[in-house]
Formats: sequence, structure tokens, C-alpha cells
Amino acid sequence: MDIPTLRARHPEHWMKAAAIRTLAMDGVQAANSGHPGMPMGMADVATVLFEKHLKFDAAHPGWHDRDRFVLSAGHGSMLLYSLLHLTGYPGMGIDQLKNFRQLGAKTAGHPEFGHAEGIETTTGPLGQGLATAVGMAMAEESLAARYGRKIVDHRTWVIAGDGCLMEGISQEAIGLAGKQKLGKLIVLWDDNGITIDGRVDASDVTDQLARFSASGWAVLSCDGHDPDDIDRALTAAKADDRPTLVACKTHIGYGSPKKQDTAGAHGAPLGAEEIATVREIYGWSHAPFVIPNDIAAQWAEIGKKGAGERYAWEVRLGMLSATKQAEFERVMTGETSPKLAAAVRKLKKKLVADAPKVATRKASEIALGAINAAAPETVGGSADLTGSNNTLTTGLGTFDADNRKGRYVYYGIREHGMAAAMNGMALHGGVVPYGGTFMCFTDYARGAMRLSALMGVRSIYVMTHDSIGLGEDGPTHQPVEHLAMLRATPNTLVFRPADAVETLEAWEVAMTTQDAPSVLALSRQNLPAVRLKNQSRNLVAQGAYVLAEAEGKRRAILMATGSEVEIALAARDLLQAEGIGTRVVSMPCQELFAAQDEAYRKKVLPAGPVRVAIEAAVRLGWDRWLCAERGSEKKAGFVGMEGFGASAPAPELYAHFGITAEATAEKVKALL
Amino acid sequence: MDIPTLRARHPEHWMKAAAIRTLAMDGVQAANSGHPGMPMGMADVATVLFEKHLKFDAAHPGWHDRDRFVLSAGHGSMLLYSLLHLTGYPGMGIDQLKNFRQLGAKTAGHPEFGHAEGIETTTGPLGQGLATAVGMAMAEESLAARYGRKIVDHRTWVIAGDGCLMEGISQEAIGLAGKQKLGKLIVLWDDNGITIDGRVDASDVTDQLARFSASGWAVLSCDGHDPDDIDRALTAAKADDRPTLVACKTHIGYGSPKKQDTAGAHGAPLGAEEIATVREIYGWSHAPFVIPNDIAAQWAEIGKKGAGERYAWEVRLGMLSATKQAEFERVMTGETSPKLAAAVRKLKKKLVADAPKVATRKASEIALGAINAAAPETVGGSADLTGSNNTLTTGLGTFDADNRKGRYVYYGIREHGMAAAMNGMALHGGVVPYGGTFMCFTDYARGAMRLSALMGVRSIYVMTHDSIGLGEDGPTHQPVEHLAMLRATPNTLVFRPADAVETLEAWEVAMTTQDAPSVLALSRQNLPAVRLKNQSRNLVAQGAYVLAEAEGKRRAILMATGSEVEIALAARDLLQAEGIGTRVVSMPCQELFAAQDEAYRKKVLPAGPVRVAIEAAVRLGWDRWLCAERGSEKKAGFVGMEGFGASAPAPELYAHFGITAEATAEKVKALL
Repeated sequence: MDIPTLRARHPEHWMKAAAIRTLAMDGVQAANSGHPGMPMGMADVATVLFEKHLKFDAAHPGWHDRDRFVLSAGHGSMLLYSLLHLTGYPGMGIDQLKNFRQLGAKTAGHPEFGHAEGIETTTGPLGQGLATAVGMAMAEESLAARYGRKIVDHRTWVIAGDGCLMEGISQEAIGLAGKQKLGKLIVLWDDNGITIDGRVDASDVTDQLARFSASGWAVLSCDGHDPDDIDRALTAAKADDRPTLVACKTHIGYGSPKKQDTAGAHGAPLGAEEIATVREIYGWSHAPFVIPNDIAAQWAEIGKKGAGERYAWEVRLGMLSATKQAEFERVMTGETSPKLAAAVRKLKKKLVADAPKVATRKASEIALGAINAAAPETVGGSADLTGSNNTLTTGLGTFDADNRKGRYVYYGIREHGMAAAMNGMALHGGVVPYGGTFMCFTDYARGAMRLSALMGVRSIYVMTHDSIGLGEDGPTHQPVEHLAMLRATPNTLVFRPADAVETLEAWEVAMTTQDAPSVLALSRQNLPAVRLKNQSRNLVAQGAYVLAEAEGKRRAILMATGSEVEIALAARDLLQAEGIGTRVVSMPCQELFAAQDEAYRKKVLPAGPVRVAIEAAVRLGWDRWLCAERGSEKKAGFVGMEGFGASAPAPELYAHFGITAEATAEKVKALL
Repeated sequence: MDIPTLRARHPEHWMKAAAIRTLAMDGVQAANSGHPGMPMGMADVATVLFEKHLKFDAAHPGWHDRDRFVLSAGHGSMLLYSLLHLTGYPGMGIDQLKNFRQLGAKTAGHPEFGHAEGIETTTGPLGQGLATAVGMAMAEESLAARYGRKIVDHRTWVIAGDGCLMEGISQEAIGLAGKQKLGKLIVLWDDNGITIDGRVDASDVTDQLARFSASGWAVLSCDGHDPDDIDRALTAAKADDRPTLVACKTHIGYGSPKKQDTAGAHGAPLGAEEIATVREIYGWSHAPFVIPNDIAAQWAEIGKKGAGERYAWEVRLGMLSATKQAEFERVMTGETSPKLAAAVRKLKKKLVADAPKVATRKASEIALGAINAAAPETVGGSADLTGSNNTLTTGLGTFDADNRKGRYVYYGIREHGMAAAMNGMALHGGVVPYGGTFMCFTDYARGAMRLSALMGVRSIYVMTHDSIGLGEDGPTHQPVEHLAMLRATPNTLVFRPADAVETLEAWEVAMTTQDAPSVLALSRQNLPAVRLKNQSRNLVAQGAYVLAEAEGKRRAILMATGSEVEIALAARDLLQAEGIGTRVVSMPCQELFAAQDEAYRKKVLPAGPVRVAIEAAVRLGWDRWLCAERGSEKKAGFVGMEGFGASAPAPELYAHFGITAEATAEKVKALL
């Protein structure tokens, strides 16, 4: 539909949408950077969505039963900021839009979760929003099963671009959503045929409708500028019990004579002159950032239209039993289950008594048995490695379309989609997600794992087979750099527990840390118990601690994590036998150790003795602890990997790569 | 087709395939680990492929015009090893199969490129083989355009499993292949309906034929146990000018009464008893690892059937001009263009004279202008960020179905698919691939980038926008941990050049390093020239070097990379003004510096002075250079990032995060 026709037929709609379009142009122009083309293209769809379909109440952005709106094409952030401003979300005054992309503003270049109410997730890395939304829709189904449709009954809406659909993660998301029959997930595809490098067909010939349909989605199309046609499509999408893709045919940079339908509209300001021309075409005579009262009032009305529904919901919530209400509020705000501490205490006592020699992946399963019983909000899963990751505990049940009460997800071979879905569940609230794969395949999930950290959400990654200790599968499956990669990532807790007690303690910290993801790096191979005394205090929470003290004068400190703590203890025996007093420090979480006060750190790692670190991984990152607060690097050494692993039984690999008690003891003696 | 029928109808075929099946069972049983189910399921398809369709000559595995065979479902490695053994590939004696998964054997748990002839690429991480094969098929088309169809005319065959098709990377590969109309790429899908966690339909409902078809593929099906039907499908696939998917309906663990059609056949030995039963069902009375002479002879014949074709090809090659022959041999063996050194020398002289203040991404474009002219084997591209990555130079032309002479690929928004395709081109030979995206999106490409390193192939990654210096796009687009991640990865050269000369030198090292990938981390923002004196020696090749010497007594050393070298030089000015003698070390490649001899390293970083490193990224990894060969950490400091970035203009971000000359000078003074 051309603009004169559209203006003539739908004058009120046009002006509401024009408010979005001009704010987007103005915001990008003021910042002298940003992406005007997408908001200009999708303003009509967004207007119809917010006016007629999205369930929300701008004054209460935290309403638990609101529809979730995810801007997967995050570069079009001015679309979202304009909507939040126009509908009256708290804290999103016009000054925020004027300060788009400036330091301290809520209006970052791409939407950042936590910056402002109404930003449901961080987007920008393409495809993430779509895949995260799948998790939100799963959380909705899970909670509806637990608390009933009177309390939980909302949709998840996504705006996605061609970039989102070309990224591989989209296939994982689509496949998962199709299998899970997430009928309340609706994806609005900004089908404008343009990418940064030019026309979509220069790099892709995919028939997206056919592709989504192949994975069990309902597919629809509409003219993305005709409000009636948009409304028809969105209404139909809501009526379908399958996840639905709506291809919204749009023009990027709609109305710009020089840039419409070109990549030039995508990622740069239109320029003052072009903006003036576009304003004329839009019939919008107002100064930058000025919204006339009548249009502002119409938008404000839209922002309030859900108030009644929200109130009715609160009445329904109030009719639940006090216990159920409190429980709902607890899980939605992410508070830790009050039963968790006692369950951990009880199991720890038993583990200390039993001292099982098990792989830490098995120890994790044991810990999960207690945690899943004490915290009904956990939803676990694995990327097709259930029996290897030991992520399934008794009685969880399979989460699928026939059993929304199930708490275990068969994610399929989709590490990236799983991680993003976990983020979505955590963001939605009500669910504490955990999911497993082999440690090496953090590579596949990196994009979403970084967002867990950036957003500060409690996604818990169960990464088993964490070293050459996995043995025969060989170097493609043996992480050597992944611990360093994860430790390099800000706001991520990386645990590598040494035995069953440490594994349980790591799980406890992961469950009670609400503002950061955790990664548990777990062994395939059996490990002896090293924590033989019951202590109620969580030693893993300190990051590192003295596991075995030196006898006699302390001349060496061995630091190790996970499966190499056993080696450190054996090396200590060798050294003590030669009269060399040796302390062993177990260091299950470097981030938590770094966060301790200096006095504690110096107590654990005093300056004098020789230090040797042992980890079946690369050295990168260890020098900090080898050098910290002390003398020469010459008094420090590392026993670990210098390159990729090999295919052989694990014990042979440890010997081959020289990660042994003997090699450790020799290194200490050479340094003394 | 049931086994008695199949045996009766196709007795010769059956026994040939049974040889594969029993070797797979026996190898896994001997190793007491591995994956027998897939080779047992796909033995019929593989037999027909090798016997009737694959162009190869086992005695000459390096024949440049051979068909490429990629086992994307790499866990089924015994299928490949059996085929290589039976057809007589050099070095693949029966002892290798007996030593499956043992230290030092060529028969690693998953196929490892470089271990044996006939292993065209490393596989195991699912989906990688398929995506790598796309690059091989692209290289074939590119070379055919350059050298003619008489010299280059072969297919790329892939065996892929459900896991390969569920991984997101598969969608990127499928989309790229469909757009590129890679008619000589044929994917044989082991359609057995089983994954590790059970039935495929427990996690996926995708109609794969419809999905591939949606991206422009031809799609076919066959009974994967009926040799006639397989032959029919493969013949049809070859005749189609689109990339083709053949769904081969198979039974995992075919013939095992206890394990066929179950996940139990996937990843564990069948057990001696079950193997005995299966042998009876197969009609195979021979001892483990024994192949009767008649069957061995038939297989040996298959291994030789391509000899005539290979000979004819050599004759045709010999009819090319001597120059053309030499050039073909040079590019196929990966030798550096003889014109490169002079081109670099010439450009370096000019850059030193001009001292341009440009972003290093722009400097990279300038370098590429010279390199692409001097080395016609380069094929560049970008994941839809051509104008930002500056990867396109004049005259390359677009590589697509209508112009196979083009040397620039519009990869679309497919970082992972691009990286894997680059690996495929490098493995195929004849092409030196480079490709660009934003540094932050190494996250999306990690799976393939790790394989570049593990295989030791010359894939060159052009990663621009390498820090908070990208500014307003904000933390989702600002790498802070990625330099550490890449440096943690073995066998990867990570360059972060400071100006145009260093960028050119980095490119020269990347182009001449045949056995490792390179990553160039490049700035968005302009940087002043710091290399103002013409030196023919490549200083970047030393990893780090003294850029500016202290005046007076040397009391401090500042180390920096890339965009922070400018800050180090400014800090030096501040310190020298206060009489504090300060050396500046530029450290564009830590891996190369670590590889220098101790004398050189000590010369660059002598023990005495205070050391401060400056990099707009996390500290992890820097302690090595802050502590190396010297005294206390107390005399060392770091100026960089402690967490994620923010959205604002770049200069404000540098000031906000305290990455400034002033902060650096203050840190030095505090340490003195």
C-alpha cells in the first residue's frame, strides 16, 4: 500500500505509526548512529500489535501474566524505545530517547535487559531473541500447568528480521518450538528483502514459509503496512494452536525517497535533509521528539488498555490459597526455595559419610536429586546427552505438549537453542533452568551463554566430559581452552568441583546466585572423595580453600581443580615423603576466590612457597594465581595441556601429557 | 528390506557391506568404546557409493581431482576407517583398525584430518562436516572456473546424521549451498530415526526433505539397505544441477537383534555375545578383523577402479602450459604466491611514507588490495558486513552460480557456516579463504574456528570492531573476552595490529602460515601510524617488539596491542615529561612472541622495570607477560576492562572505563 492511500484510509493509525517512525528517525539522527530503517518499516505492525493484541499494562510492566514482547531484530531498538515511551512505561521519558546511545541512558544501541522496564531480553546478536522467546513460551506453559490458566495465560511475540532467520540458531529454535507445539509463540517476520550487504536474495533463496512449515509451524503472510491486513493475520495467528510465523511484507525505511528498500536505510542516520522530506511525506509537521497531544493521548490510552485485565488477574491471583500465592510470588521473583538449604545440608552429611568414588557428573545427578525435590521450579534438560550428562533425576517427567507438568526437556542436538531457551525461561521467571551438553560444545552455545552473563540471569550449564579425561572420543570432544574461555567471560561462575561434596556445594551456589549464570565443569571419570569432614559451611563459595595442609615447614603449594585435585593430593604424598612440606589448595571457582578479601586470599596463597597449578587444560589465566601477591614466576610452575588432546583411554592420556603426581612432584623439586 | 532377502538378492554386495559392518563391530569391541550402530546402518550406502559413484584412486589419495568424501557423522568413524582399509589406502593396515581409539593410532575416536590419507576433514562436532563440505564444493567450482573442467571436475559427498541436521550450523550450510547452486554437492542422510536420547521424534518433528527443498535443494529418498535403490538415488542425485539431499532410510545397528533401531546401538560396543549372534545373521563366519580373500579382492578392485581416470586426468594436466601446471600445483599444495613478498615490501614502503591515520579494518582493506592482486588464490567474503569489515577489494567479482570466477562470497548472516566453508576451501586446496564479521561474533563461529586450529588449516578471520572502540552499538557488540578466548585456543595466531604497517605485516604472516588459522582483530576507529621507519623485516612476526625506547633510565615498560598502542605512546610522553624513562612494547601477537627464544623475550621484557599492560579487554592471559622472568606482581598493573562494555561514543567509553594515557601514567607512578 502506498503512503497516500494508507494515510487516507487509516488516518488515526497512520499518525500513531508515524509517531514511532519520526522518533526513530530523530533518535538516530541525534545520536548520529543507529538503525532507522527497521522501525520505519515495522511501525505499522508494532502499532497494531500494541493497540489490538499485546496484553500489557504500561504502568505495571512487571505484571507476571503480561504478554512478552521480544525485539529479536535488536538493532531496531528505537522501535521498542518509542513504544515504551509512547505507551507510558515508567522511566522512559522523552529525554531517554533524546539520549539514545549515550553513556548512562537506558536507551542503549541495542536493547539491554535491566536498563528499562519493558525490555524483556537483551537482543542484537541476531537470532537470540527468537530463540530466547522459545524459552519464554516454554516457561509459560510450564507455569500454566503448575498454577492454572487463570493465573498464567499469555503469549510471546517476537519481531525478527532476515538476519535472525539466517542465523543457525533460528533453526534450533524453530525445531524446538515446532516439536513443543508452542501455540502461544508468534513470530512477526520483518520481510523486507534487505540485508546489510544488499538484497536478501544475494545470499539466500530460502522459502521461509516452507521452512517453518516443515517444522510444524503455522505460516501466514500480510501486508505489513496495511493495519487491517496485519490485524487479520495477528488474529489468525492467535487462533492457531501451533507456533505461528507471520511474514509481514514491509519496506525498510518506509517513506524515505532516497533510502526506502535499500541497505542504506539499515544502519545510518537518514540525514537532516532526508528527514525533512520524509516528515512531509508522512504529513508530520512537528519538531524532533515532539508528539502532538492528540496522538500522545491515543498512545497513552493504548498503554492503559490492559489495566482492567491486569486488575482482574490480581483478583484471580488473590483467590488462590495464601500458600499457593506465596509460592507463585517466590518463584516469579526468583527467590530460592526455603527447602534448599536443609536438603543440601542433609545430603552433604550423607556424602561425607559415604565418601563415594564417582564421576562429578554422577555427583551432579545425586545433587540434582535433592535439589529438584526441594525446588519445584527447576526445569532440566540436555542437548541429546541425557545419559552422559546425568541431568535427569527420578520423577521429573518429560516436558512436552502432552505433559506440561514435566520438568525435563529433550532439547535435541541443539546446544545453542537450548542455552537461549534457558535464558528465556530464566527471564520469564518462575523457572530455574539447567541444561547439559559436553563441555567442548560450549563452543556451539557461546552466543547464548554470553547473553546469560551480560543479562545476569540464572541459567545453569551442566558441562560434563570436561577434559582429556573423557578419553577415546579424542580431541574434537576434549576441551582444553574452554575453562579459560568461560573464566574470561565477565559475570560467569565457572565451577570445577573435585568430588561429590564440592559438586553439591557448587550446585548450591549456582542455585542461590540470582544474577549470574553458572557453569559446572564435570568429569566423565570417577574421582575419589576428597572432602572427608562434614562442614556446614559451603567451601566452594569461597572459590578456593586449603584442602590439605603442609606437614612441617610449608615449602610448596599445589593448586588444582576438579579431577586434578586427586593428582595434587598424590603429589603432596610424594613430596611429604621426601620431607617437603606441601599444601594443597582446591580451587573450584576462580571468580569466587577473586571476590574474597585480600586477607583470605593471602591466607590461602601465602607469598613464600613454590606454587604449582595442575589443571588438564591450557595455562592461560593461571599466571594470575601463580604470581599473585608474591615473588618470581621462577618459583611457579604449571602442569597441564599445551595443545589439543588425543584419542586414547583417559589414564594413558594423563600419562602421555604428563599430568601426573610424579610430574608435579618433579616440577616442585626443580623449582625449589 | 530384511536381511535374508537382501543376502539372497545381492550376495556379493551383502558380503562387501558385511565386511564394513563386522570391522566396525570388531573395532569398537576391541577398543571397548565407540559407535558401531552408524557404520552397521550405512554400510550399504557406503558400499554402493565407493563401488559405483565415488571418483577416487586409493593408491593416490592426494589426486587433486578426486571426489571428496566427508563423514559428517564423525562418530561413525569405523565406517571410514573400514573403507580406507578395504580399498587399500596407504598406511591403513588392519593393525590400525585393531588399534582403534588407541594412543598413536591413525584411527582416532573421530576422524582427525592429518592422521591418515583419505580423511578429508576432522569431524565429530555435529554439522561441521556438512558445512565444511559446502566450502569444498565452492572451492571446486572456483578452481574449475580458473583451470577448466578438464582439470577440475569432481563431486563432494557427505554422510550426515540426524544430529548434523538438527545443529543450527546445518541451516547456514544448507542456505549457502542452495543459494550457491552447488550441484556437485550430495548429502546422504542416514535417516534412521534415532538419536542418543531415543527416537528423533522425541525432540524434532521437522520434515527434512521439505526443509532442504525450501532452500533450493533437490531431495530424494531411498531404501538405504537396497543396493539397487541406493544406486538409483545416487545416479539421480548426480544428474541434478542443484545440491541434493538423499534421505537414506536405514536401521541403526542393522542386524543386531538386541540393539537394531535403538539408541543402544549408537555409542557402545555390542558385546561379544551379541556380535557372535550378528555374525551368524550376516552369514559371516570369519574371525574378528579377518576379511576373506575373495571379498578383500573385490574391495581392492574398487580401490583401483579410478586409476584409469586418474591417469587420463594426469595426461590432461600435462597438456596445460608449463606455467599453468606449475601454478595449479602451487595453489593446490598451498605454497605462497611468489609475488606476495614484493607486493608487501612495496606497500609497506608506501605506508611508512604516507603514515595514514586509518582504522586497522581500513588498513586491512589496503593490505588486501595488494595481497589479492599478488595471490589469485584468495577467496574473500563477509557474513553480511562487507562495508564494515572492509573485506572487498576492487576487481574481485562476486562468486556465485553465474560467476564462478568471482572471488568474493556474500555469505549472508551465517558466521558459523562461513567459517566452516572457509575450512572446506582450505582443506580442498587451491584456495586461501578469508572472511569477516564483527569480532564479537566469533561466538557464533567458535565451533568451526576451533576446527581450523585443530586441523591446522589456513583460514583467515577478519574480525573487525574489536573492542569498546566500536562505540554506540553497545555491549552485545563489544568483545571483551574474545581476545582471551582466541589466545587460549591452541594453534591459532591472534593478531591485533596497531596501525597500517602492523596490519600489513600481520596479513603477510597469516598468508604465509600454512598450518594454522589466523585471526586479525581490527579496529573500527582510526588509529595513528606508529611504525614510522621503513624496515623490510616483519616485526609482527616476532610477536612483540620495542616500539619506543625509554629515554634515560628505563623504569617502566608499557605493553599494548592494537588501538591501545596509541594510548601507551601517549602515556610514555606523560611519564617521560616527568623524567620517568618508559619503554613501549607493541605486542601484536602473543603466540608468536611466546615462540621466540628466551634471549629475545628477555630483551623485549627485561626483568627490572615496572610493567603495565594496556588492552581494552579482560586481563585474563596478561599476567603471563606481567610476571614473566621477573619480580613481584606488585610491580605490574593492567589497564583494561573488568566487565562488559556500554553504549556510547567510543572516546567517552575509553574515558569512562579509564583506558587512557593519564590512567596508565598514574598506574605506573603508583607502582614505582
